[in-house]
Amino acid sequence: MPLLVVGSVALDSIQTPTAYRDRVLGGSAVFFSYAASYFAPVRLVGVVGEDWPAEHTQLLQGRNIDTAGLHVVAGGKTFFWKGKYLPNMNDRETLEVELNVFGDFKPVLPDHFKRSDYVFLANGSPVTQMNTLEQVRGPKLVVADTMDLWIRVQHEALIELLNRVDGLVLNDSEARLLTGEENVVTAGRKVLGMGPKFVVVKKGEHGAVFFSAHETYTLPAYPTERVIDPTGAGDSFAGGMMGYLAHKNSFDPRVLKEAMAYGILVASFNVEDFSLERMKQIDRSDLDLRMEQYRKMLSF
Amino acid sequence: MPLLVVGSVALDSIQTPTAYRDRVLGGSAVFFSYAASYFAPVRLVGVVGEDWPAEHTQLLQGRNIDTAGLHVVAGGKTFFWKGKYLPNMNDRETLEVELNVFGDFKPVLPDHFKRSDYVFLANGSPVTQMNTLEQVRGPKLVVADTMDLWIRVQHEALIELLNRVDGLVLNDSEARLLTGEENVVTAGRKVLGMGPKFVVVKKGEHGAVFFSAHETYTLPAYPTERVIDPTGAGDSFAGGMMGYLAHKNSFDPRVLKEAMAYGILVASFNVEDFSLERMKQIDRSDLDLRMEQYRKMLSF
Repeated sequence: MPLLVVGSVALDSIQTPTAYRDRVLGGSAVFFSYAASYFAPVRLVGVVGEDWPAEHTQLLQGRNIDTAGLHVVAGGKTFFWKGKYLPNMNDRETLEVELNVFGDFKPVLPDHFKRSDYVFLANGSPVTQMNTLEQVRGPKLVVADTMDLWIRVQHEALIELLNRVDGLVLNDSEARLLTGEENVVTAGRKVLGMGPKFVVVKKGEHGAVFFSAHETYTLPAYPTERVIDPTGAGDSFAGGMMGYLAHKNSFDPRVLKEAMAYGILVASFNVEDFSLERMKQIDRSDLDLRMEQYRKMLSF
Repeated sequence: MPLLVVGSVALDSIQTPTAYRDRVLGGSAVFFSYAASYFAPVRLVGVVGEDWPAEHTQLLQGRNIDTAGLHVVAGGKTFFWKGKYLPNMNDRETLEVELNVFGDFKPVLPDHFKRSDYVFLANGSPVTQMNTLEQVRGPKLVVADTMDLWIRVQHEALIELLNRVDGLVLNDSEARLLTGEENVVTAGRKVLGMGPKFVVVKKGEHGAVFFSAHETYTLPAYPTERVIDPTGAGDSFAGGMMGYLAHKNSFDPRVLKEAMAYGILVASFNVEDFSLERMKQIDRSDLDLRMEQYRKMLSF
């Protein structure tokens, strides 16, 4: 089943304690699409400027990602983010943000994208997410991401959105901010009460927690020493998860848990290098091999 | 197999965001012993003062914990700790510490304790831990805990101890402090290189990571909303783990993983109330029921 994603497409400059990369390929929809492409065809909706290197589009197209929805604004500049990771590789500081063409982004779905069964509203304003959703006809499963900025400045629109989506994916700090609850289990359940049928709280290097009316479970991250650049970990997690659901064309509880595990594993590869570099080196068989190790790790 | 533990026996005053308890039963050896007692007979070595309520000793004795090694110092006062948990229930501040009789603690093992197959050196100075170890004849498995204070002020003695124990249990922050490594996997492996055959890095609400020459794995915490008092979580984790190993009289890789899971589950009960209150309400069948849920949570 094709999977539609709408979100940011960006150029990132990234400083880690040991290295620097200037204006590399990034953005929530990019990490998501690439991660999902191991499992299912992807339809990408986003916006870039004239400075966008054509080779980035070609890279995505080479992965069965339909870029018909990637709008290039003549005379515009691509969304730019510059960040710096602290020595713990979890906390980061934003050094520069230029929204550029992403600031005025009003997604318009190409006609052949409008009937998409699986939809992911990657990080963006809830108003934009809702506008996108209204262009989709009869989706089977809609999942959204959000972030602290929207929780703070577009709270009402976000609450409205939560009543329209099937699932929400967010960080633990965002779940706390949204609910005012410190305990992550309490927070997750409270988000569930805001409308979605399921909620996934991402805990970075500590894995993720799943909440539905009938289930609460934690899956740990895959333990890795090689954390080169955590940028896009959450988006590649969501991409792996949604890609697997679209591939299986199911979101029953068993498939959802497998999908979450695949998301964790795609993310564990993604952090092993800058931008998409590590993901470019692997294929589905590498994920399945790591899945075998992950299952073994969790069985006793 | 009987399990020997040497460590602190304390009275704790605990302030949480919502409640306060004054001078309740605590201490590393106490939490450990009670947690281990679900699985195996325990031999407790520690020291208290005249202010120690006899009912605490009776409570422990009622759980098949041999208190022959609990020395009462006439005219002395029991180790006292007063702490305050921050709203996140993970970080805490120490408000008062009175080492009292624990400050001069030189453990002397009763004769019938000296041949103990399973030994846990709970939190204490590495010099004291070593002195204790030297009194034990031919143990099968020796595991130690440590803490930031000893890493800082008795570094050499700790390094020496690490070459004498089979296993080490420590917090993630302590593993970072001991090794200078930020990545918990790198840190854990580096601790392993210091001598122990296995290392368990405790991550509080995020579970624990196991390291041996052949294995690295993470087990998540059992997700719970009911976190009333985290005091003793690490000690009850270690108690559950070591109790299970002593019960099975084995520490092969499969048993070690089961033991770690039991440790996680005993700790998940322990945090559900102050002091030993929650542990007093449960028995082995409650642990086994939660184990069923935990196994189900981790299988897909």
